[in-house]
Amino acid sequence: MLFRLALAAWLLVIAPAVAAPSAKLESPDKVLSVELTTDGDGRPSYAISRLGKPVIAPSRLGFILVDAPKLERNLTLAGEATRRFDETWEQPWGERRFVRNRYNELRVTLAEKNGLQRRFDVVFRLYDDGVGFRYEFPDQTNLKTVKIGEELTEFSLAEPATVWWIPAYEWNREEYLYHRTRAEEVGDAQTPMTVRTDNGLHIAFHEAALVDYSGMNLTRVEGRRFKAALTPGVGGAKVERTAPFPTPWRTLQIADTAGGLVTSNLILNLNEPNTLGDVSWVKPMKYVGVWWEMHLDKKTWASGPKHGATTENALKHIDFAARHGLGGVLVEGWNVGWDGDWFGNGQDFSFTQPYPDFDLKRVTDYARDKGVVLIGHHETSANAAHYESQMEAGFDLYKKLGVTAVKTGYVADAGQAKVMGLDGKVHFAWHEGQDMARHHLKVVTEAAERQIAINAHEPIKDTGLRRTYPNWISREGARGMEFSAWGQPGNPPEHETNLIFTRMLAGPMDYTPGIFGMKTKSPDGVATTWAKQLALYVTIYSPIQMAADLLENYEANPKPFKFIEDVPTDWAETLVLNGEIGDFVTIVRKDRKSDDWYLGAISDEEGRVLTASLGFLEPGRHYKAQIYRDGDKADWKTAPQDIVIEEREVTATDVLTLRLAPGGGQAIRFMAASKGKPRQ
Amino acid sequence: MLFRLALAAWLLVIAPAVAAPSAKLESPDKVLSVELTTDGDGRPSYAISRLGKPVIAPSRLGFILVDAPKLERNLTLAGEATRRFDETWEQPWGERRFVRNRYNELRVTLAEKNGLQRRFDVVFRLYDDGVGFRYEFPDQTNLKTVKIGEELTEFSLAEPATVWWIPAYEWNREEYLYHRTRAEEVGDAQTPMTVRTDNGLHIAFHEAALVDYSGMNLTRVEGRRFKAALTPGVGGAKVERTAPFPTPWRTLQIADTAGGLVTSNLILNLNEPNTLGDVSWVKPMKYVGVWWEMHLDKKTWASGPKHGATTENALKHIDFAARHGLGGVLVEGWNVGWDGDWFGNGQDFSFTQPYPDFDLKRVTDYARDKGVVLIGHHETSANAAHYESQMEAGFDLYKKLGVTAVKTGYVADAGQAKVMGLDGKVHFAWHEGQDMARHHLKVVTEAAERQIAINAHEPIKDTGLRRTYPNWISREGARGMEFSAWGQPGNPPEHETNLIFTRMLAGPMDYTPGIFGMKTKSPDGVATTWAKQLALYVTIYSPIQMAADLLENYEANPKPFKFIEDVPTDWAETLVLNGEIGDFVTIVRKDRKSDDWYLGAISDEEGRVLTASLGFLEPGRHYKAQIYRDGDKADWKTAPQDIVIEEREVTATDVLTLRLAPGGGQAIRFMAASKGKPRQ
Repeated sequence: MLFRLALAAWLLVIAPAVAAPSAKLESPDKVLSVELTTDGDGRPSYAISRLGKPVIAPSRLGFILVDAPKLERNLTLAGEATRRFDETWEQPWGERRFVRNRYNELRVTLAEKNGLQRRFDVVFRLYDDGVGFRYEFPDQTNLKTVKIGEELTEFSLAEPATVWWIPAYEWNREEYLYHRTRAEEVGDAQTPMTVRTDNGLHIAFHEAALVDYSGMNLTRVEGRRFKAALTPGVGGAKVERTAPFPTPWRTLQIADTAGGLVTSNLILNLNEPNTLGDVSWVKPMKYVGVWWEMHLDKKTWASGPKHGATTENALKHIDFAARHGLGGVLVEGWNVGWDGDWFGNGQDFSFTQPYPDFDLKRVTDYARDKGVVLIGHHETSANAAHYESQMEAGFDLYKKLGVTAVKTGYVADAGQAKVMGLDGKVHFAWHEGQDMARHHLKVVTEAAERQIAINAHEPIKDTGLRRTYPNWISREGARGMEFSAWGQPGNPPEHETNLIFTRMLAGPMDYTPGIFGMKTKSPDGVATTWAKQLALYVTIYSPIQMAADLLENYEANPKPFKFIEDVPTDWAETLVLNGEIGDFVTIVRKDRKSDDWYLGAISDEEGRVLTASLGFLEPGRHYKAQIYRDGDKADWKTAPQDIVIEEREVTATDVLTLRLAPGGGQAIRFMAASKGKPRQ
Repeated sequence: MLFRLALAAWLLVIAPAVAAPSAKLESPDKVLSVELTTDGDGRPSYAISRLGKPVIAPSRLGFILVDAPKLERNLTLAGEATRRFDETWEQPWGERRFVRNRYNELRVTLAEKNGLQRRFDVVFRLYDDGVGFRYEFPDQTNLKTVKIGEELTEFSLAEPATVWWIPAYEWNREEYLYHRTRAEEVGDAQTPMTVRTDNGLHIAFHEAALVDYSGMNLTRVEGRRFKAALTPGVGGAKVERTAPFPTPWRTLQIADTAGGLVTSNLILNLNEPNTLGDVSWVKPMKYVGVWWEMHLDKKTWASGPKHGATTENALKHIDFAARHGLGGVLVEGWNVGWDGDWFGNGQDFSFTQPYPDFDLKRVTDYARDKGVVLIGHHETSANAAHYESQMEAGFDLYKKLGVTAVKTGYVADAGQAKVMGLDGKVHFAWHEGQDMARHHLKVVTEAAERQIAINAHEPIKDTGLRRTYPNWISREGARGMEFSAWGQPGNPPEHETNLIFTRMLAGPMDYTPGIFGMKTKSPDGVATTWAKQLALYVTIYSPIQMAADLLENYEANPKPFKFIEDVPTDWAETLVLNGEIGDFVTIVRKDRKSDDWYLGAISDEEGRVLTASLGFLEPGRHYKAQIYRDGDKADWKTAPQDIVIEEREVTATDVLTLRLAPGGGQAIRFMAASKGKPRQ
């Protein structure tokens, strides 16, 4: 299933040079360039230009260590090497099948001129649509254990800009509405943080391959100068590692259009290839769940008369999934531990013991018979220490029963996760600290050994590790649809158009779209039209997509539900036809298993008239377009359910006009006819 | 010498109330009020109003602990007590002799409803011109050792505002030029951070009584919402204390005018009274030094042919000081340790061994004969661990030789201080972390035992501890005049008008004014007029004031130097006649030893015409005004030395027009005549 297609991969190594004042490199097509220099005090900085214009003004590099003098002054450029790389690899599942990984690499060795004579490399990978760079600490006498107090990496925006961001270090973790402010008004921000310069350039700041290190937030020092701010650790250091080791990649996706950020493969390319071998057992799918009814207070996670996770309710969902060709059924609240004050505690959760009214074996047997899988659920309340004490048993049980995917959960306030320290004690931790980074990879690798996929909620941020561990299929990590159930406020119409150009740049999100019942506990209810709910299946990528609403709402509305039945969750290609951050976007994706294409267009609170040129379709071929569009009176506030479903024949030369209502959207399936002939 | 004059001090204690949703209190004259509430989740917040209008919108309180669940949810208002206080106390030295300390106090006990049932008090002291509040942790079973990960205290500005601030956590410590931005553009900021709302209200955020705790910076979360950000500690916690203990006071000075911030006594009043007893040995004074010549590269700290700290040079300075009635002579570079790469190291400094060309005993004997004191010098390069190993010997030596004041120094990059941890190991530390707070008080108390005063450079921030330890006479803690010697850039003309309304609100600063030689290594040189240099002695308060220039510049200009000879360093009263942050200010102070008043007015880069009503003078009494003003052509850029010195007779009914040049100033001595008669 998985193979790597090396089109061209060759090396060009320049012999280490004598100490030079600076080192430079351009991207393969000379779009981006980077320059690293050291100043009179031996302080290194880097700068990034695009087509000759500064994008990142000279910005510092270095570290403060907690047990040794900082690594930031007195450095000399002791070596320099460059390398070219060009390879195309295949994703086992994803937004596209083939990914080209083409970059020029600049490796610079910085060494202290005297004193401890410590050294580290800074490695830049220049793509035409972005830059990644990381530090690499080699094995060396005077820096065995690296205890990082602060990473001093800076990002100084060269041009005035608007920024989309959410705050860091707040009581919540990642579930905020996005701010859209001037760059000079950003506070401590999480990544991805997305920037549009006044000149129209789009830049997204994030990181790739967050392994055994603390997640990076960004602090704005002053003006447009940002600095890495590592998530606190559980000891004196924010990160503690033994050399040799690399840091995660600090990434900048850079594009003229907002859509160019979405189609960038930078984050994935900077991760290591699949280490799991054959992962054909990882199955993209759609699923329903015993879930939304809890968010609406119709059922409870806890046991009792309103308990949602009963055998009967599970079987009902399995029947529905089987009937409609959905692959999975999630059941939350199946296991003992939900009855006390579990929030922020989590030590009472059992990962093997079901409630008496939930016959786990019967449910999984029944599902298997119906060709459906039960999606397991491991809520931890962020008590990773407790979870790890039962995790293997939990996964063993699931493996035995044929559960191939598990949703994990880490509900707790920020800073209130619990991890087992190296000292054998339980420590309070942040969701994105080094210990939690380790924990999540432990979960993913333990699950992989049992051929189980992981969908983590309240997770550590996505940094593209799905390339290395393709069983890490999705996660939450932003305000999901649940906020439209009970949020005060809920998700406003612009929320998804923000997500696509910020959070979604990191990777798949289990957003749980597909709501038709728009009245909820949230004051504005679900603030989209029905057509937009359908369009979310195309615009918000995840290989595991929930049909989140109550089954009765689907049963009552089979026609719009048809799109949810049809839409794939695995793609051969993805293109962005248009889009502006926080305003609107149109995305088309080609099904991996057929020649069909799917289009999703969504808007914020404004009505839109967008143009979609169908040039992505195969030339000369006919397609039947099954269109799910906003009706004439559609409006998220007054008539969300006004949807028109119609068909027309199209070819690659057609240009569609997409009329989106306020808070609206449009979803289209392009069904390929036999070549050269109109489809029947 | 020191006595406390209790005009009225009485208590009114309301018995602890039953759990109430909120607690409220007003300041004595009902100017300010505070309200503390808990929400449905038991999260406490406070709000501050002034004359009925919100100043601080509801803002969170609480803590994240590193080894226990956070203290922030699930809290109930378990007790409430109020108290009134009114006392006038005397400063042994200061900006004014008598200080009224009049406030209403609200003490609220917050207790966890269940679980660990931990508790803490929040104590508010409401003055009419400001608010201080702190947390107090009582002795209790489930919270013996308090390991604070984050203090969650927030400050949410109710009104749009402009803010003057310098960044926190940068490579330097406190030596920055001030930013003047909208509130929404502040990054991580140090305190004092000064705010002017668009309605014209002035608010300064700072802290008082920073004892055995980490210094507080402010992070802007989003919009105008700021959050306490404690300086990192050397272990996993930012602060580690054993209960019972109080935190420092979080302070808000609040006034209609910028000058109202300057005359506020809030910070001092929130500190504990003098614990040293008779401190008549603490002598306010002016001094010259072997110092500016090093900054100009005419001499060196290190030994060799250009060594500044020679016996001969010291004697020359002593002669000069004696001749001109200045009390002290600072000699830097007198001790062994300056010859290697001392920056950021500091382990080679000896605090007892002079260089061979500096005869310490001869110098101190000579000074004593001349009625002058040698001001000692202890540069540590922030290696507090090394300093503490010799500190007592260093102070013993100075005491034996009659040195009554020591300038300490902590030159090192931020985060690169070195402290001896409780584990017996040396740790890297931030200049304002808990360990450095402990270190500085250790220095001050060891010095006090030997009747030595301390003037700390690159210090921990001033939080008014001079009230408790009156031998802590001054400090640096901002960009001093030295930046005008070599800064790239130097201090611009607005710098001092920023300092007075920001850094100076914390306490005295050893700014080292009095420069007549305006051409330096800095591109703009010393960016003031001569008249402004003189006015700085009145506007920038310090009980120890340097006449910082080369002696030859004073000898060549005896007429303007006369003001430096005359101006006192200890005051009976201080008034601000006018002022706008970063623009201009006029301050008058009354000599503590005579009936004379002194006026200082300074401007930024703009010329000004200010009015000074002399109503502060004794009615009916005649004064000779000795005026040092900018000449007609004066301009900091083109004619800084254009000064006019003139005299006129004035009384309290006069109104002076002060014409200040760009970058200019004016200094006036009002010499009191015998009562009712013109002065001779």
